[in-house]
Amino acid sequence: MALAFRTDEAASVVRADDADSDRFIASVQNLRTACGDGLERVDDQILDALQSPVDMIPAVAGHLIKSGGKRLRPLLTLAAAGLYGYDGRDHVRLAAAVELIHGATLLHDDVVDESALRRGASTANVIWGNKESVLVGDFIFSRSFELMVATRNLTVLGILSRAAGVIAEGEVLQLGTQKNVATTFDMYLAVVEAKTAALFAAAAHVGAAIAGAPAAEVEALRRYGLNLGVAFQLIDDALDYSGVESSIGKTVGDDFREGKMTAPVVFALENADDEARTFWRRTIGGSDQQPEDLAEATRLVHSSGAIERTRREAERYAATALGALELAPAGPMRDALSELAKQSIERGH
Amino acid sequence: MALAFRTDEAASVVRADDADSDRFIASVQNLRTACGDGLERVDDQILDALQSPVDMIPAVAGHLIKSGGKRLRPLLTLAAAGLYGYDGRDHVRLAAAVELIHGATLLHDDVVDESALRRGASTANVIWGNKESVLVGDFIFSRSFELMVATRNLTVLGILSRAAGVIAEGEVLQLGTQKNVATTFDMYLAVVEAKTAALFAAAAHVGAAIAGAPAAEVEALRRYGLNLGVAFQLIDDALDYSGVESSIGKTVGDDFREGKMTAPVVFALENADDEARTFWRRTIGGSDQQPEDLAEATRLVHSSGAIERTRREAERYAATALGALELAPAGPMRDALSELAKQSIERGH
Repeated sequence: MALAFRTDEAASVVRADDADSDRFIASVQNLRTACGDGLERVDDQILDALQSPVDMIPAVAGHLIKSGGKRLRPLLTLAAAGLYGYDGRDHVRLAAAVELIHGATLLHDDVVDESALRRGASTANVIWGNKESVLVGDFIFSRSFELMVATRNLTVLGILSRAAGVIAEGEVLQLGTQKNVATTFDMYLAVVEAKTAALFAAAAHVGAAIAGAPAAEVEALRRYGLNLGVAFQLIDDALDYSGVESSIGKTVGDDFREGKMTAPVVFALENADDEARTFWRRTIGGSDQQPEDLAEATRLVHSSGAIERTRREAERYAATALGALELAPAGPMRDALSELAKQSIERGH
Repeated sequence: MALAFRTDEAASVVRADDADSDRFIASVQNLRTACGDGLERVDDQILDALQSPVDMIPAVAGHLIKSGGKRLRPLLTLAAAGLYGYDGRDHVRLAAAVELIHGATLLHDDVVDESALRRGASTANVIWGNKESVLVGDFIFSRSFELMVATRNLTVLGILSRAAGVIAEGEVLQLGTQKNVATTFDMYLAVVEAKTAALFAAAAHVGAAIAGAPAAEVEALRRYGLNLGVAFQLIDDALDYSGVESSIGKTVGDDFREGKMTAPVVFALENADDEARTFWRRTIGGSDQQPEDLAEATRLVHSSGAIERTRREAERYAATALGALELAPAGPMRDALSELAKQSIERGH
């Protein structure tokens, strides 16, 4: 599901002509501004971490980082630390470490998903090859740990090393749901929580922890990140059946073509008649797809109410995220995090 | 170069009929005995670390661990701690972490080397697929970091996280030397030091560090591991042209077939006449190989003195390792480490 990770990154390009998405982009920009020069420092930290005498490493890594978009995860770390007036430099290291875990995961996802065959020539595995993507991903992952260790804070080391394990577990779990039409919403959620939301959660969690926030608020920030992450992924998965193609960035329908059992398909199958069930079994379960099948899949997820239901679930998670945020100190930073959660579920509307 | 990592693991099988290798195996057994029940505790720790509700993870990981051989790297950690009478449990955690880094690297190496096509059906990527090997490798890598973090010792965290980065760097560097007949011995050494010796070095280094050895001796143990690692790899690379096929385990000639520029080929090329140079350019540089070429390659590395020279270099590194060991406390543990270094260069003789 490189796609899922990719979508939010590319949203500014994909949906720049969409009014509500402009509001989402504005909410991200607002959060950036609230974090001062934090994100510039994160970018410097990342570039520094990816230096290597082995030429290919900065080349692949730089490509990955440059093509990455809005830096939502490191922003969560900066913002969570900022809520408590943190003024050291470890939040920058941790934000960079979070983004590097994300980047390493992207490189490996693109290999696993064989994305070379489907998307534009912009993925690292297309330009440099699968071997390079696997090994440079390992390098980035290692550098992420070095950055964490540099903070000399065992609490955040525990949080992030655990998150990395959960993400990998989620990726393996997803292999088991792919093309499996018996996948339930609970199974899907288990994948999303591990594969996507765990890093959102850890990002906010370590930001609050490094800033020395009270325990209950550290936990609240973790829950904010976790629930925001699930909401985000649900909307991403709905948008993959939005039917709006883009000339740049994400291609709508990738999830369908890759046989991914995302929420829209899970819900569509729950309400499917025999004919629809046969369609999903053939196209997702049996990987037997014709060019015209995407249009039919899109029609089915919309007519069955699956998109609406996916969005309702996202709203539920976003509301939980907002609830968790109430424990955090009031002020412009909390307002910015709150606005981000609200706008994240409006994408595509 | 999964091969290089694999060779030592499989040596007990591959060369069990060889008298001098029996002496090497005996030296490993001797070191195990000196470490008491340490290695059993490491195995328990590893099995515990690789538990997961995602069924495939313990399956792939268990397969990898079970097929792993003599556990040289974790033995170095246990022995280095044992030299200083360490009686805690962190050396077991660290030894397990070291073996897990090695295991994750093996899984990714087998994907990168496309080992499925060449070796028996025993590699994880053959049984479960490349995707699974990439993702389970990431999981194992993460669990390794969790084990390190559990020691709450920032010194060893720094050593091991740095080593992981160096290993990945070495793997990428090796991609650049593969099939490159202009590779020099220095370039080869840079790959070996990063890809293989860095983990041997870190294994011994963290063992001494966790045991609270004096700084000069911690550094000596690091140098012991580093030089032993280089010696080990040199002998492995010589053995790949030994011409003795085995029914189980490593297949002689894999390095040649994969176009790897190992020491025997580097040295053979230095002394090559025009005809030999043309041969290497075609078979290694151009990947144009016929079934009979391995025999010719083997003849050329032997007749050019390249094997003898590779072994002499290994002896030089082993001597440096032994010299470093002189700073360590005398006793049965030091004797066992010393014997290991001596026997490691006698393999295949």
